[in-house]
Amino acid sequence: MTATLQASAVPRPSAGSEAARRRRLAMVASKGTLDAAYPPLILAASAASLGWEVGIFFTFYGLDIINRKKYRKLKVSPLANPAMPVPVPNLIGALPGMTAAATSMMKGWMKAAKLPTVAEFLDIARESEVKLYACSTTMGVMGVAEGDLLPGVDIAGATAFLDFAAGADVSLFV
Amino acid sequence: MTATLQASAVPRPSAGSEAARRRRLAMVASKGTLDAAYPPLILAASAASLGWEVGIFFTFYGLDIINRKKYRKLKVSPLANPAMPVPVPNLIGALPGMTAAATSMMKGWMKAAKLPTVAEFLDIARESEVKLYACSTTMGVMGVAEGDLLPGVDIAGATAFLDFAAGADVSLFV
Amino acid sequence: MTATLQASAVPRPSAGSEAARRRRLAMVASKGTLDAAYPPLILAASAASLGWEVGIFFTFYGLDIINRKKYRKLKVSPLANPAMPVPVPNLIGALPGMTAAATSMMKGWMKAAKLPTVAEFLDIARESEVKLYACSTTMGVMGVAEGDLLPGVDIAGATAFLDFAAGADVSLFV
Repeated sequence: MTATLQASAVPRPSAGSEAARRRRLAMVASKGTLDAAYPPLILAASAASLGWEVGIFFTFYGLDIINRKKYRKLKVSPLANPAMPVPVPNLIGALPGMTAAATSMMKGWMKAAKLPTVAEFLDIARESEVKLYACSTTMGVMGVAEGDLLPGVDIAGATAFLDFAAGADVSLFV
Repeated sequence: MTATLQASAVPRPSAGSEAARRRRLAMVASKGTLDAAYPPLILAASAASLGWEVGIFFTFYGLDIINRKKYRKLKVSPLANPAMPVPVPNLIGALPGMTAAATSMMKGWMKAAKLPTVAEFLDIARESEVKLYACSTTMGVMGVAEGDLLPGVDIAGATAFLDFAAGADVSLFV
Repeated sequence: MTATLQASAVPRPSAGSEAARRRRLAMVASKGTLDAAYPPLILAASAASLGWEVGIFFTFYGLDIINRKKYRKLKVSPLANPAMPVPVPNLIGALPGMTAAATSMMKGWMKAAKLPTVAEFLDIARESEVKLYACSTTMGVMGVAEGDLLPGVDIAGATAFLDFAAGADVSLFV
């Protein structure tokens, strides 16, 4: 049976003092596979729909999600994830074409479940004023130039993220 | 030498106002391998033992942990994790049977360390009134039906998780 | 254009009451690959540079980061990460020597970006009084003995971490 989280119906003692300001969600997105890109994008869209202020800090492989050359081509690996709904033996998964096959399969599941694509989620994020930050420290490591970033993405350092997260109600590292 | 975290002995300035209510831990469990299932289950049991209110939101591969057909069969991959205590060359790790071997090896270590199994941890969680939620958005993507869920698991959306997490003392994405 | 997080310039309503105490960052480091070791070490150094109190709780594979036999030899896998800046076909990535090649490649990028090594980051952490804890529960599982830990690392349980994190401004699971 579908249930809402009962506890959420009970106001927290601190709710009174917090009612005056917007809630805030701060996330780090450190992974660049298609499957790992979804959780921060889903949470960002959900939080924005609740009126929260949201910031995502893309770092390391996560920079791919906001890289204009890569965000439409994120992939799922069929290897080393025995939790894949259709598990692929590693010896098969290593064959050429299998990463493309796993990616295509997951895109099909996403579509059937009517989940927006990564590009659509990024549009939702920008329309909802979700703040998108590229990690300045790891852009160099990953070979990402300023010109590689999607429009609407700013560059920020780890200290700026921490400062933002310190005022957040929920902080998550994905 | 075993040490407790010294800082924890020092009351935080806000401790007074918070003393009246239970602490709360909110977690997302997004991975479905045996090794990745343990941290949220260990943290949930630990928090519950301290009297905390705990909620775990299972999403994407993490749904396997509360899937009655899968929770007893979670696996560890020997591939692509050079940090495995007994590292396996990838060419060997890709051979048929090696995922089963790595899983069996890790189960042996868990048992030797007297760590409960996933099934036992889930029992502890339910006995401790840890709230278990299956993510409604990703159940469709991962092909999980309501009937696949273990007893005691409710279905909730991302906004319900955010609402629960907003009142949490600690929120973690695993 | 480089931007700081605008929101961070706006004082949070609760900032007044919190100004008197140090901010606190609590992290779990659960992974032991070279790439996964960096985010908690970068965040710890950044937070410490801001004057924050920082504690990192190393668990499961993350114990490798503070294992004196292993911390200088953390590796990157070329397999199952299609987000690698120089993607390697899995069939090639599985060949002997490819994990070493991927590790060496990433170390080169880190060096070119003038990022400290893991050993240097650990020195920075200890000089900044970042608290380093090895998870007592998983040391046994992963076969880590007290004598394997780097100097300055204490042993703590999950409840101690939760207690520390409950007083943190930002908690992250890496």
